Amino acid sequence: MKSGATLPAYELVVETYGTLNADRSNAVLVCHALNASHHVAGWHADANGQPLPRSEGWWHSMIGPSKAVDTDKWFVIGVNNLGSCFGSTGPTHTNPATGQPWGADFPVVTVEDWVNAQARLLDVMGIEQLAAVMGGSLGGMQTLSWTLQYPERVRHAIVVASAPNLTAENIAFNEVARRAIVTDPDFHGGHYLREGTLPRRGLRIARMIGHITYLSDDVMNEKFGRSLRTANGDDPADTAELAYRYTTQDVEFQIESYLRYQGDKFSEYFDANTYLLITRALDYFDPAREHGGSLSAALARAKARFLLVSFTTDWRFSPARSREMVKALLENGRDVSYAEIDAPHGHDAFLLDDPRYHQAVRAYFEHTVAGTEVAK
Amino acid sequence: MKSGATLPAYELVVETYGTLNADRSNAVLVCHALNASHHVAGWHADANGQPLPRSEGWWHSMIGPSKAVDTDKWFVIGVNNLGSCFGSTGPTHTNPATGQPWGADFPVVTVEDWVNAQARLLDVMGIEQLAAVMGGSLGGMQTLSWTLQYPERVRHAIVVASAPNLTAENIAFNEVARRAIVTDPDFHGGHYLREGTLPRRGLRIARMIGHITYLSDDVMNEKFGRSLRTANGDDPADTAELAYRYTTQDVEFQIESYLRYQGDKFSEYFDANTYLLITRALDYFDPAREHGGSLSAALARAKARFLLVSFTTDWRFSPARSREMVKALLENGRDVSYAEIDAPHGHDAFLLDDPRYHQAVRAYFEHTVAGTEVAK
Repeated sequence: MKSGATLPAYELVVETYGTLNADRSNAVLVCHALNASHHVAGWHADANGQPLPRSEGWWHSMIGPSKAVDTDKWFVIGVNNLGSCFGSTGPTHTNPATGQPWGADFPVVTVEDWVNAQARLLDVMGIEQLAAVMGGSLGGMQTLSWTLQYPERVRHAIVVASAPNLTAENIAFNEVARRAIVTDPDFHGGHYLREGTLPRRGLRIARMIGHITYLSDDVMNEKFGRSLRTANGDDPADTAELAYRYTTQDVEFQIESYLRYQGDKFSEYFDANTYLLITRALDYFDPAREHGGSLSAALARAKARFLLVSFTTDWRFSPARSREMVKALLENGRDVSYAEIDAPHGHDAFLLDDPRYHQAVRAYFEHTVAGTEVAK
Repeated sequence: MKSGATLPAYELVVETYGTLNADRSNAVLVCHALNASHHVAGWHADANGQPLPRSEGWWHSMIGPSKAVDTDKWFVIGVNNLGSCFGSTGPTHTNPATGQPWGADFPVVTVEDWVNAQARLLDVMGIEQLAAVMGGSLGGMQTLSWTLQYPERVRHAIVVASAPNLTAENIAFNEVARRAIVTDPDFHGGHYLREGTLPRRGLRIARMIGHITYLSDDVMNEKFGRSLRTANGDDPADTAELAYRYTTQDVEFQIESYLRYQGDKFSEYFDANTYLLITRALDYFDPAREHGGSLSAALARAKARFLLVSFTTDWRFSPARSREMVKALLENGRDVSYAEIDAPHGHDAFLLDDPRYHQAVRAYFEHTVAGTEVAK
C-alpha cells in the first residue's frame, strides 16, 4: 500500500449490471464516495420479486436499462472499496495476525490503493481496458487517479462534483468529524468491537456535520427554513403558529430533527474506523503534490478523454475546483467536455435526478464513449 | 423573561471607557457576540502598568482614544450578557433556590431579554438615550432589537456582520455544536459542576465547528492550505518536502493542529451551558416572526439612524442578510448607510483591523452620530 503497509490478503465485493461483450470492451467501472458501496444500481427484491423499500443502488437514477448509463449497452461494475464496511475487507474484519477485528490497526488506505485494488479486480475479470471510469466526489478522485495510474486502461473518465485535492476547509470539516469519533469514550482507541461498544455519539456528530456540508444554504432554507418541529413530530402542517418552547436541549426547529435523524440512522450502520479511513483518503489525495504542486504536470500522464460535471451551489467541491482540472487537462491537450449545472442542491446534486445533468452524461456516453475505438 | 421564566435577581458586569458628558448624551453601548464579554477595549495591566499579553478587549482595534469609536469623545459601555460566563449572572452561579450552581436550570435567555437587562442597566446609570448602540454578529442582533424595543432611547444603530434571523444552515451548525456538548458523558444533563466534571470533549468539537464557519475558505487556504504539520510543532518552515505519515488520529495538516488548539483553549475557559444558551438566543432571534414573516413590518417601530456593514466572504452572516435589513429599513423611510466590505476573512472580519471598515465606522461617528441633535 502507499503507506508502506502490506495487507496479506483481501476480498472486494462487487455488483455488476448488464453483460460484458465478446471483446470485453464495454466495461464501465463506478467508484463510490464516502458512505456508498458496490450497490450502485438496481434494487433488492423481496420474496415475491418486488423491490424492497429504499433498496435502490446509490446511483440508481443514473445507471440502468435505458438510463443515462444504459446497462443494455454497458457492463457496469460497482466495487466496494478496501477499508469500507459493506463487505470488502475492512476494519470490522478479522486481522489474521491477531484473530481479533482489525479495528484501528487496519492500514491507512489511499485513493491510489483503491485504484490498484480495482485494477487487480479487472485483471481477475479479464478486462484489459475500461470504456469508462466514473464517480462523484471521492469517486471522482478515484476516476482521475485511474487516468494517471493506468492511463492505457481507461478510454473515458467521467468526474462529477470532484476536486484535484481537498481545500483546508474540507480537511477541517473532516478533522472535526474524526475528533468527534475519536474522543467518544466508546471509541476505545479504535478497538470498540473488542470492547463490545460502538462510538455512536461521535458517528452521529460526524454525520450531522457531513449532512450540513452536502446541502446548500439555499436548499436548506427551502426544505426547512425556520419551521418549527410539529406536535407529533411528523405532521407536515404549517408551523408558523406554533410558539417557541424555549429549550436548549430539545428539538425546536425542523432542521434539528432532520439532522438528528440522519445522525442516528448513520450511527446504526456505519463503521467508525471506516469513517476515519475514508475521510483520510480524501485528505491525502493530491496528485499535484509529487509534481511541485503543478496539477498540469501531474495530469500529463493521462490519456483518457474526460467529461467533468460540477454544480453551482456545491460549496464543498465547487465548480472552481472542476475548472482547475479542466484547465490542467486542456494544458495537456486532452479532450475535455465540461458541464456546470445550475442546481440548488449543493454537493448532494450529484446523487439526484437532475435532467440537465443526466442528459449531459447520457449524451457523452451515446456520442463519445460509444463512438471511441478500442485501443488495440 | 420572554420564555415566561423569572430570574429573582441578577448582576451585570460592566466596563466603561471615556467620560459621560454633562447632559449624558455621549453614551455608546457595545453588545457582544457568542464568546466575548464586557471587556471591549483597552487592556489589563501587570504590576508595572504594562499591558498583559493578549489582554486587549475584543474590539480593541475599533474602540479607544483616537480610534474609529473615539473614547476621548464617547462614553463607551461594554456589558456582559445575562447567562454568560464572564461575571454576569449565569449558569455557573448559584441558584438561590437550591444553593447549587444553576447549570441547565438557568432560564433560556433571548436577545430581547438581554436588551431589557441592558436598558435597566442604563436606568441605573442615569442614561436616558444612547448616542449609539453597536455590535457585530449576535451583537448586531441586539443592536437591531434595541431599535425595536426602545426606539426612543437609540439615536444610532451600528449593525455589523449580522442578520435579521439565522438561516437553517446556521441553526444546523449551532445544533451540531450543542449535540456534541449535550452528548458528552461529562455533561450530566447540564449539571456537570455538581458532578465535578466539565464536558470538555463537547466544547472542543463545538469550538472547532465554530472556527471553521467564522473563517472563509479563501483565508483558510491562504493561512493553512494543505501545509503539513512541522516536525517540532511550531516551526513555520516550508513543509512541502515533508512526507505523509499515514495516520487517521494524529495531526497531519496544519489546519488540524490549529483547530485542535482552538478547541482545547476554548474548553478551558468557556462554560458549556452558556454555549447552549447563547447559540439558542441566536436561533430564536427573529423580529419578523411576530409580523407574519415581514421584516419591513417588524422594523416599522425603529426610529434610529442606521449604519450596516457586511463582509463579502462572510458566509455565516452574508451580505445578502444585511441587504435584507437595509431594504426593510428603507421601506420604512429610515436613514441607512450601508458598507459592503470586500474582505477575505469571512465572519471573523468584523473583529479585525480592516482600514476601509474602520474608516466607514469612523466617518459615521464623526459626521453622523456627532452631528445628530439629542432628542429632548
